[in-house]
Amino acid sequence: MRRVPLPNIEVTDPFWSTRQRILAEISLPLQFEHLERTGRLANFRRASGIEPGNHDGLYFNDSDVYKWAEAAALALSHHAHPTLRDQLDQVVTLVESTQLEDGYINTYFQLGRLAERWTELYEKHEMYCIGHLIEAGVSMAESLREDRLLQVAIRAADHVLATFGPNLRPGYCGHPELELALIRLSARTGDARYRDHARWQVESRGHRPSPLEAEFSAGNMRHSLFLKDGAYSGEYGQDHRPIREQEDVVGHAVRAVYLFAAATDLSREDETLLPSLRTAWHRLVTRRMYVTGGIGPSAANEGFTRDFDLPNASAYAETCASIGLMIWGRELLERTGESDYADVIERALYNGVLSGISLDGRTYFYDNPLASDGSHLRREWFHCACCPPNIARTIASVAQYAISETEAGVAIHLPIGLNAELSWGQVQVESNYPFQGKFQIRIASRIETAREVAVRIPDWADEIGFEIDGAEEAAEYRDGYAVITRVWRPDDVLIVDLELAPKWVECHPHVTDNVGRIALTRGPLIYAAESPDLGTHPAAVSPIAEAEIVETQIKGLPGLVALQTEAIVTRDGFPDALYAELGTIESADQDVKFIPYFAWNNRGRHPMAVWMRRA
Amino acid sequence: MRRVPLPNIEVTDPFWSTRQRILAEISLPLQFEHLERTGRLANFRRASGIEPGNHDGLYFNDSDVYKWAEAAALALSHHAHPTLRDQLDQVVTLVESTQLEDGYINTYFQLGRLAERWTELYEKHEMYCIGHLIEAGVSMAESLREDRLLQVAIRAADHVLATFGPNLRPGYCGHPELELALIRLSARTGDARYRDHARWQVESRGHRPSPLEAEFSAGNMRHSLFLKDGAYSGEYGQDHRPIREQEDVVGHAVRAVYLFAAATDLSREDETLLPSLRTAWHRLVTRRMYVTGGIGPSAANEGFTRDFDLPNASAYAETCASIGLMIWGRELLERTGESDYADVIERALYNGVLSGISLDGRTYFYDNPLASDGSHLRREWFHCACCPPNIARTIASVAQYAISETEAGVAIHLPIGLNAELSWGQVQVESNYPFQGKFQIRIASRIETAREVAVRIPDWADEIGFEIDGAEEAAEYRDGYAVITRVWRPDDVLIVDLELAPKWVECHPHVTDNVGRIALTRGPLIYAAESPDLGTHPAAVSPIAEAEIVETQIKGLPGLVALQTEAIVTRDGFPDALYAELGTIESADQDVKFIPYFAWNNRGRHPMAVWMRRA
Repeated sequence: MRRVPLPNIEVTDPFWSTRQRILAEISLPLQFEHLERTGRLANFRRASGIEPGNHDGLYFNDSDVYKWAEAAALALSHHAHPTLRDQLDQVVTLVESTQLEDGYINTYFQLGRLAERWTELYEKHEMYCIGHLIEAGVSMAESLREDRLLQVAIRAADHVLATFGPNLRPGYCGHPELELALIRLSARTGDARYRDHARWQVESRGHRPSPLEAEFSAGNMRHSLFLKDGAYSGEYGQDHRPIREQEDVVGHAVRAVYLFAAATDLSREDETLLPSLRTAWHRLVTRRMYVTGGIGPSAANEGFTRDFDLPNASAYAETCASIGLMIWGRELLERTGESDYADVIERALYNGVLSGISLDGRTYFYDNPLASDGSHLRREWFHCACCPPNIARTIASVAQYAISETEAGVAIHLPIGLNAELSWGQVQVESNYPFQGKFQIRIASRIETAREVAVRIPDWADEIGFEIDGAEEAAEYRDGYAVITRVWRPDDVLIVDLELAPKWVECHPHVTDNVGRIALTRGPLIYAAESPDLGTHPAAVSPIAEAEIVETQIKGLPGLVALQTEAIVTRDGFPDALYAELGTIESADQDVKFIPYFAWNNRGRHPMAVWMRRA
Repeated sequence: MRRVPLPNIEVTDPFWSTRQRILAEISLPLQFEHLERTGRLANFRRASGIEPGNHDGLYFNDSDVYKWAEAAALALSHHAHPTLRDQLDQVVTLVESTQLEDGYINTYFQLGRLAERWTELYEKHEMYCIGHLIEAGVSMAESLREDRLLQVAIRAADHVLATFGPNLRPGYCGHPELELALIRLSARTGDARYRDHARWQVESRGHRPSPLEAEFSAGNMRHSLFLKDGAYSGEYGQDHRPIREQEDVVGHAVRAVYLFAAATDLSREDETLLPSLRTAWHRLVTRRMYVTGGIGPSAANEGFTRDFDLPNASAYAETCASIGLMIWGRELLERTGESDYADVIERALYNGVLSGISLDGRTYFYDNPLASDGSHLRREWFHCACCPPNIARTIASVAQYAISETEAGVAIHLPIGLNAELSWGQVQVESNYPFQGKFQIRIASRIETAREVAVRIPDWADEIGFEIDGAEEAAEYRDGYAVITRVWRPDDVLIVDLELAPKWVECHPHVTDNVGRIALTRGPLIYAAESPDLGTHPAAVSPIAEAEIVETQIKGLPGLVALQTEAIVTRDGFPDALYAELGTIESADQDVKFIPYFAWNNRGRHPMAVWMRRA
């Protein structure tokens, strides 16, 4: 499966085209203002000598600027927007003027700490920042056909390659990301050195002696999550054992999935990389993933704890981690063609990722809990602001998760409405997903020959029908895809009918927090109970699983399919005591509504829950 | 109500006499070894010049030595034990030789930091340590009629009074405790200055400008829990507002209840102190107390969060905090004569306090969660070791929570078996509480006159009967006590019959963690489900509240009344996935047993839960 260049895909469905328009017109221009307000752009002006001053904020703040630039470039490829265009130009110029003669670029170190550069790889994110610079440069070249930022990126990459390497100094970043970026840079430039270096970093990670451990031994690492019981552990940054021995996903969630995504791509030339990655993925999604596609339950390490530890209210489930899960899943999907990976991408995208941004595109969740007492809310920006530009670049490039070009045709992973230009012709998908399950596919091949259309059969689907020109169409089933092969005529319309029946799901009983609880779903969407639709706190509501579930609308959330059913609701009327003999609490039947999880906290701060006690 | 001196009460019932014997013979000698092993005693040797070296451990570690000494003195008053006696003498001699000429004593500051003494009242616990020294001195004088430690304590108290005061320097400790101690010292010595100083500290606390805030303003307090959003708050140490305005219990739990206990005693001379204390107590026990009598749910501040926030697995519920709750409750009980306070004392004592020590007296819980995944266990000692000696002094003095002398006779708060010598005669209680509810009371008055016997009617009791010489006895009911007044003859036996029926209780629905859950109780005991008695994880077990509950025994826990009933138990057999359509989990009926909460984790590490999903 081959990725389709973003400029070749136009998103057309109401769900995503609205979000992409809001992104280009509202979210990204606002994010630029936050970059300015919080000193992130000033750091570049100071480092390049345009204005005086010291470095402001966190040492990895440059990466927010790069990720924003990448998102802006992606967004501008389909949505011309003069303000955003101008903001992007400002950033590119600023970055260009900041880069040192030798290719190095990092405002934190350039502002008074240049002698200390590359001395704390475990912590200081220098390669991580360059990784995001490279991704921005590549995306800008691909999407806007402009090479200025790519040239900066190449010089920075060359600086890394001139500093670290098998015959130079050992080293890799405490936070993986550069690996993924170098792989993209290699593909863009055709220069194999970058991919080779990425391979070298991935392969050398986790061996002893580790260059990060050496920093610990030198006394540079006192209070770090890389330590365990006072000794170097490395788990936090996946430096605890070689990549082929990492069969459990541990440590910091974003770091883990970024590293594994790069390793998956590298497995194209080396099959032996794949088995442990597949095992790690399988264990992750069968033991450590929220029903929303959130991963990494703990705030303490922004990452993983132990199997089946999935608390709801304290779920960290960082937006960036779910995005990373999508990135890794896409690598595995493209590598293997198996739909299971797309199932997880879909789960994360429509739930735990999308919850990361408000419907109006102005505020963000960093962590995405599955239950709230009403204190959790989206914010305009963060001190550590990795998530807002990360979700921006994800929304801007969502089409690249929806389809792939295949040897014999096209694979539709997610039925997002789009027009795509492939190497052999055009594909058009008309859809109102995820609210409607029926969608249409049209194929136009430049030469008259049979083309395969592979449509993913979601893990949640019971019924799926295929029809062309009023006649049922037989499909071949392969790796979770229904494959229809024919010589497509211009007026052939493949109608796919995915039944979107509301369903209650239950959770593996080892997840103690969810025992006795059920969650409502409809197609790819996980639903949540938010107090305005209940008239009470979600904890007081026990849905009756046997009751009918009907589709409905919510006034304050137009365009969303809400679900209504019956529940037993606890009455408020306990005595002035905390504990009383059983029988004190009264309850009654009541209609309650549920909304898509991604849409919660768009009407103010309210208690919310995904997993409900079954009546 | 007047407290009966400890030497005048001998505990006789099997439940507590066994614990007191284990305390004197095993726990306290072992604790002495831990004091030695961890440098706590060495600090005194070093400070007194007996051996060279710097201070080891935390700056408040002296207090562990004092609390141990207090517990040892209390224990030795009824259990002669040569090793313990010798250990106590060593400690007293060491403390004596450490005290400075001017009365100051604190090994942390005496070992190289004397110039800094009294500069960080908010944090450094100097008065707190002296408070525990005073309590030890007073207890030793009362229990063993030996004044050596009391003399040290008086000199230390005099040093405080010569340093701080209304016409001297303002100041009080970040951790209240000295106030309680000075009140006891005043009662012991008849010197009103100590009580006056305690009153001054309690009254000046929480006013602006606060002496603790002044330390913050001077730049001494950067990373402190006393701050909120970078500004001084004081809530952590109850320094946020004057005592009469503290109607909610906030901040560090132990600090709060120690302060309020002192203020309650001081209200004897000033009625205006009492209303806010009664309000604070009421709000605490109706909104912020675990069913075990645990208080302070959060590890972050070792204290309070917000109303109805009572998570089970992460419950901090420090042993010392429940002990402090008992101390405060006793002050309110003695002050008002109302049984509600004794209900809470009983709840804490038999559950959240007693769980703090293992049945063999060798290990301790610092935090007492109400649910565990099997990772929680009692430990021999702690880096911050406040709890082990605190529970020791509580067990040694448990009789002082059981009865009070009243104007007209005696009040029995807890039916602990004991022989007590009161000012007017003797009281004997024969009991096998808390496992049996029937107990006998005999009264011997030195002069033939009517004496009132007031027996508390517990909040959990449905049925209570009184009988003398085979005839039902009528009682007058007053403030939650059944009062029987008569001229008692030597062979009069008052038989009280408290029905100990097993009962399911439920929790206020605002406690979201307990919605749909029930807890099993029998008399004062809260029961817990521990996996060895279930054959599975407690989360898999849903008791059938309607099923019969029978008393039973558990092999590994002899002498305890266990309870057996029926539950629906989830079968282990989920597919290799985290989520599946409702109907995947299978379950079956099964008998399950429950044990008293205090007895859990005495058979190794196992999952445990108090609040169970109701079937």
